Amino acid sequence: MFLSVTAQKKDPEVLIRANMAEQQASWNEGDIDGFMAHYWNDPEMKFVSKKGVALGWQNVLINYKKSYPDRAAMGELTFGFEEVRQIDKKNVLVIGSWNLKFPEKDEMGGYFSLLWELKDGHWVITVDHTS
Amino acid sequence: MFLSVTAQKKDPEVLIRANMAEQQASWNEGDIDGFMAHYWNDPEMKFVSKKGVALGWQNVLINYKKSYPDRAAMGELTFGFEEVRQIDKKNVLVIGSWNLKFPEKDEMGGYFSLLWELKDGHWVITVDHTS
Repeated sequence: MFLSVTAQKKDPEVLIRANMAEQQASWNEGDIDGFMAHYWNDPEMKFVSKKGVALGWQNVLINYKKSYPDRAAMGELTFGFEEVRQIDKKNVLVIGSWNLKFPEKDEMGGYFSLLWELKDGHWVITVDHTS
Repeated sequence: MFLSVTAQKKDPEVLIRANMAEQQASWNEGDIDGFMAHYWNDPEMKFVSKKGVALGWQNVLINYKKSYPDRAAMGELTFGFEEVRQIDKKNVLVIGSWNLKFPEKDEMGGYFSLLWELKDGHWVITVDHTS
Protein backbone atom coordinates (compact mmCIF):
# COMPACT_ATOMS: atom_id res chain seq x y z
CA MET A 1 0.00 0.00 0.00
CA PHE A 2 2.72 2.43 1.03
CA LEU A 3 4.77 1.48 -2.03
CA SER A 4 1.84 1.87 -4.34
CA VAL A 5 1.10 5.38 -3.06
CA THR A 6 4.78 6.29 -3.44
CA ALA A 7 4.83 4.96 -6.97
CA GLN A 8 1.71 6.86 -7.87
CA LYS A 9 3.19 10.04 -6.43
CA LYS A 10 6.16 9.69 -8.79
CA ASP A 11 4.03 9.23 -11.89
CA PRO A 12 4.71 12.29 -14.08
CA GLU A 13 1.10 12.61 -15.20
CA VAL A 14 -0.17 12.53 -11.60
CA LEU A 15 2.41 15.10 -10.51
CA ILE A 16 1.75 17.41 -13.46
CA ARG A 17 -2.02 17.25 -13.07
CA ALA A 18 -1.54 18.10 -9.37
CA ASN A 19 0.68 21.04 -10.36
CA MET A 20 -1.98 22.30 -12.75
CA ALA A 21 -4.69 21.93 -10.10
CA GLU A 22 -2.46 24.07 -7.86
CA GLN A 23 -2.01 26.60 -10.64
CA GLN A 24 -5.77 26.82 -11.16
CA ALA A 25 -6.31 27.28 -7.40
CA SER A 26 -3.58 29.95 -7.16
CA TRP A 27 -5.06 31.87 -10.08
CA ASN A 28 -8.50 31.73 -8.54
CA GLU A 29 -7.08 33.15 -5.29
CA GLY A 30 -5.55 36.05 -7.24
CA ASP A 31 -2.07 34.66 -6.62
CA ILE A 32 -0.05 35.09 -9.83
CA ASP A 33 3.22 34.35 -8.01
CA GLY A 34 1.80 31.00 -6.90
CA PHE A 35 0.61 30.34 -10.45
CA MET A 36 4.10 31.18 -11.79
CA ALA A 37 5.80 28.86 -9.30
CA HIS A 38 5.20 25.97 -11.72
CA TYR A 39 7.07 27.64 -14.56
CA TRP A 40 10.79 27.04 -14.97
CA ASN A 41 12.44 30.00 -13.22
CA ASP A 42 15.04 30.56 -15.90
CA PRO A 43 15.91 33.16 -18.56
CA GLU A 44 15.37 30.45 -21.20
CA MET A 45 11.73 29.75 -20.33
CA LYS A 46 9.49 30.60 -23.31
CA PHE A 47 5.90 31.79 -23.62
CA VAL A 48 4.57 31.63 -27.19
CA SER A 49 1.41 33.40 -28.35
CA LYS A 50 0.05 35.01 -31.49
CA LYS A 51 1.98 38.15 -30.50
CA GLY A 52 5.37 36.51 -30.31
CA VAL A 53 7.75 34.71 -27.99
CA ALA A 54 8.32 36.10 -24.48
CA LEU A 55 11.69 34.90 -23.23
CA GLY A 56 12.43 34.31 -19.55
CA TRP A 57 10.45 33.64 -16.40
CA GLN A 58 10.72 37.27 -15.26
CA ASN A 59 9.25 38.62 -18.52
CA VAL A 60 6.39 36.14 -18.43
CA LEU A 61 5.60 37.19 -14.86
CA ILE A 62 5.62 40.88 -15.88
CA ASN A 63 3.31 40.13 -18.84
CA TYR A 64 0.84 38.24 -16.62
CA LYS A 65 0.78 41.07 -14.08
CA LYS A 66 0.24 43.65 -16.84
CA SER A 67 -2.57 41.67 -18.50
CA TYR A 68 -4.22 40.75 -15.18
CA PRO A 69 -3.59 43.71 -12.86
CA ASP A 70 -6.10 42.71 -10.18
CA ARG A 71 -8.36 39.93 -8.93
CA ALA A 72 -11.33 41.15 -11.02
CA ALA A 73 -9.31 41.07 -14.25
CA MET A 74 -8.19 37.51 -13.51
CA GLY A 75 -11.68 36.02 -13.44
CA GLU A 76 -12.18 32.37 -12.58
CA LEU A 77 -9.87 29.95 -14.38
CA THR A 78 -10.77 26.43 -15.44
CA PHE A 79 -8.32 24.14 -17.23
CA GLY A 80 -9.50 21.30 -19.46
CA PHE A 81 -7.31 18.42 -20.61
CA GLU A 82 -7.09 17.06 -24.14
CA GLU A 83 -3.92 15.01 -23.83
CA VAL A 84 -1.08 14.34 -21.42
CA ARG A 85 1.66 12.74 -23.49
CA GLN A 86 4.83 11.41 -21.90
CA ILE A 87 7.49 12.03 -24.54
CA ASP A 88 10.25 10.47 -22.44
CA LYS A 89 11.31 10.28 -18.78
CA LYS A 90 12.00 14.01 -18.55
CA ASN A 91 9.51 15.57 -21.00
CA VAL A 92 5.72 15.63 -20.99
CA LEU A 93 3.49 17.51 -23.43
CA VAL A 94 0.12 18.67 -22.08
CA ILE A 95 -2.57 19.90 -24.47
CA GLY A 96 -5.74 21.45 -23.13
CA SER A 97 -8.10 24.36 -22.85
CA TRP A 98 -8.30 27.42 -20.59
CA ASN A 99 -11.40 29.39 -19.74
CA LEU A 100 -11.86 32.55 -17.71
CA LYS A 101 -15.31 33.41 -16.41
CA PHE A 102 -16.26 36.88 -15.13
CA PRO A 103 -19.31 38.05 -13.21
CA GLU A 104 -19.97 41.07 -15.44
CA LYS A 105 -18.38 40.38 -18.82
CA ASP A 106 -18.05 37.71 -21.49
CA GLU A 107 -15.87 34.73 -20.80
CA MET A 108 -12.48 34.32 -22.52
CA GLY A 109 -10.71 31.18 -23.51
CA GLY A 110 -8.52 29.21 -25.82
CA TYR A 111 -6.08 26.33 -25.92
CA PHE A 112 -2.57 25.67 -24.63
CA SER A 113 0.23 23.24 -25.24
CA LEU A 114 2.75 23.02 -22.43
CA LEU A 115 6.11 21.32 -22.39
CA TRP A 116 6.73 20.12 -18.84
CA GLU A 117 10.30 19.12 -18.04
CA LEU A 118 11.89 17.48 -15.04
CA LYS A 119 14.46 20.01 -13.76
CA ASP A 120 16.32 19.36 -10.49
CA GLY A 121 13.69 16.81 -9.48
CA HIS A 122 10.69 19.06 -10.14
CA TRP A 123 8.29 19.12 -13.07
CA VAL A 124 8.15 22.66 -14.47
CA ILE A 125 6.79 24.31 -17.62
CA THR A 126 9.67 25.22 -19.94
CA VAL A 127 7.54 26.17 -22.98
CA ASP A 128 3.96 27.48 -22.84
CA HIS A 129 2.13 28.11 -26.10
CA THR A 130 -1.22 29.69 -25.33
CA SER A 131 -3.69 30.77 -28.01
CA MET B 1 33.81 14.04 -47.33
CA PHE B 2 31.19 11.46 -48.23
CA LEU B 3 30.85 10.44 -44.58
CA SER B 4 30.53 14.03 -43.43
CA VAL B 5 27.73 14.73 -45.92
CA THR B 6 25.95 11.55 -44.85
CA ALA B 7 26.25 12.50 -41.19
CA GLN B 8 24.93 15.98 -41.86
CA LYS B 9 21.99 14.51 -43.78
CA LYS B 10 21.02 12.50 -40.70
CA ASP B 11 21.07 15.48 -38.35
CA PRO B 12 17.47 15.99 -37.20
CA GLU B 13 17.68 19.78 -37.30
CA VAL B 14 19.04 19.75 -40.85
CA LEU B 15 16.34 17.31 -41.98
CA ILE B 16 13.53 19.22 -40.27
CA ARG B 17 14.65 22.58 -41.61
CA ALA B 18 14.77 21.01 -45.09
CA ASN B 19 11.23 19.67 -44.57
CA MET B 20 10.01 23.10 -43.56
CA ALA B 21 11.70 24.70 -46.57
CA GLU B 22 9.81 22.15 -48.70
CA GLN B 23 6.57 23.00 -46.89
CA GLN B 24 7.07 26.69 -47.55
CA ALA B 25 7.81 26.00 -51.23
CA SER B 26 4.76 23.72 -51.59
CA TRP B 27 2.51 26.33 -49.99
CA ASN B 28 3.84 29.01 -52.32
CA GLU B 29 3.09 26.79 -55.31
CA GLY B 30 -0.51 26.39 -54.09
CA ASP B 31 0.17 22.74 -53.24
CA ILE B 32 -1.57 21.99 -49.92
CA ASP B 33 -1.13 18.23 -50.42
CA GLY B 34 2.64 18.73 -50.68
CA PHE B 35 2.54 20.96 -47.59
CA MET B 36 0.60 18.27 -45.70
CA ALA B 37 3.06 15.54 -46.71
CA HIS B 38 5.22 16.53 -43.74
CA TYR B 39 2.45 15.97 -41.21
CA TRP B 40 2.06 12.55 -39.60
CA ASN B 41 -0.60 10.80 -41.71
CA ASP B 42 -2.46 9.34 -38.77
CA PRO B 43 -5.82 9.75 -37.01
CA GLU B 44 -3.89 10.78 -33.86
CA MET B 45 -2.17 13.80 -35.42
CA LYS B 46 -3.28 17.01 -33.65
CA PHE B 47 -3.64 20.61 -34.76
CA VAL B 48 -4.17 23.02 -31.86
CA SER B 49 -5.43 26.59 -32.26
CA LYS B 50 -7.46 29.13 -30.35
CA LYS B 51 -10.57 27.40 -31.76
CA GLY B 52 -9.77 23.95 -30.44
CA VAL B 53 -7.99 20.73 -31.29
CA ALA B 54 -8.46 19.22 -34.75
CA LEU B 55 -7.78 15.50 -34.54
CA GLY B 56 -6.38 13.50 -37.44
CA TRP B 57 -4.43 14.20 -40.61
CA GLN B 58 -7.56 14.03 -42.77
CA ASN B 59 -9.39 16.67 -40.71
CA VAL B 60 -6.39 18.99 -40.74
CA LEU B 61 -6.21 18.67 -44.53
CA ILE B 62 -9.93 19.46 -44.83
CA ASN B 63 -9.51 22.52 -42.55
CA TYR B 64 -6.58 23.84 -44.60
CA LYS B 65 -8.50 23.42 -47.85
CA LYS B 66 -11.56 25.18 -46.37
CA SER B 67 -9.53 28.10 -44.99
CA TYR B 68 -7.37 28.40 -48.12
CA PRO B 69 -9.66 27.42 -51.03
CA ASP B 70 -7.42 28.75 -53.82
CA ARG B 71 -3.96 30.08 -54.63
CA ALA B 72 -4.99 33.71 -53.97
CA ALA B 73 -6.28 32.87 -50.48
CA MET B 74 -2.99 31.13 -49.65
CA GLY B 75 -0.80 34.18 -50.18
CA GLU B 76 2.97 33.89 -49.89
CA LEU B 77 4.20 32.01 -46.83
CA THR B 78 7.42 32.75 -44.95
CA PHE B 79 8.49 30.75 -41.90
CA GLY B 80 10.83 32.22 -39.26
CA PHE B 81 12.70 30.20 -36.66
CA GLU B 82 12.95 31.01 -32.95
CA GLU B 83 14.22 27.66 -31.67
CA VAL B 84 14.85 24.12 -32.85
CA ARG B 85 15.13 22.06 -29.68
CA GLN B 86 16.10 18.39 -29.81
CA ILE B 87 14.20 16.86 -26.89
CA ASP B 88 15.59 13.38 -27.51
CA LYS B 89 16.55 11.15 -30.46
CA LYS B 90 12.97 10.92 -31.72
CA ASN B 91 11.40 14.26 -30.72
CA VAL B 92 12.21 17.81 -31.79
CA LEU B 93 10.29 20.94 -30.83
CA VAL B 94 10.35 23.78 -33.36
CA ILE B 95 9.16 27.25 -32.36
CA GLY B 96 8.80 29.96 -34.96
CA SER B 97 6.70 32.45 -36.84
CA TRP B 98 4.53 32.28 -39.93
CA ASN B 99 3.61 35.15 -42.22
CA LEU B 100 1.33 35.31 -45.23
CA LYS B 101 1.65 38.22 -47.64
CA PHE B 102 -1.01 39.13 -50.19
CA PRO B 103 -0.87 41.48 -53.16
CA GLU B 104 -4.16 43.22 -52.36
CA LYS B 105 -4.81 42.79 -48.64
CA ASP B 106 -3.12 43.03 -45.24
CA GLU B 107 -0.64 40.37 -44.27
CA MET B 108 -1.50 37.73 -41.66
CA GLY B 109 0.75 35.99 -39.21
CA GLY B 110 1.46 34.48 -35.87
CA TYR B 111 3.56 31.85 -34.16
CA PHE B 112 3.73 28.06 -34.14
CA SER B 113 5.19 25.33 -31.99
CA LEU B 114 5.60 22.02 -33.76
CA LEU B 115 6.42 18.64 -32.31
CA TRP B 116 8.37 16.73 -34.95
CA GLU B 117 8.72 13.00 -34.35
CA LEU B 118 10.71 10.30 -36.06
CA LYS B 119 8.12 7.80 -37.35
CA ASP B 120 9.19 4.88 -39.56
CA GLY B 121 12.45 6.66 -40.35
CA HIS B 122 10.85 9.98 -41.33
CA TRP B 123 10.54 13.22 -39.38
CA VAL B 124 6.88 14.26 -39.35
CA ILE B 125 4.79 16.81 -37.42
CA THR B 126 2.64 15.01 -34.86
CA VAL B 127 1.41 18.13 -33.00
CA ASP B 128 1.04 21.60 -34.56
CA HIS B 129 -0.03 24.48 -32.32
CA THR B 130 -0.53 27.57 -34.46
CA SER B 131 -1.71 30.90 -33.10
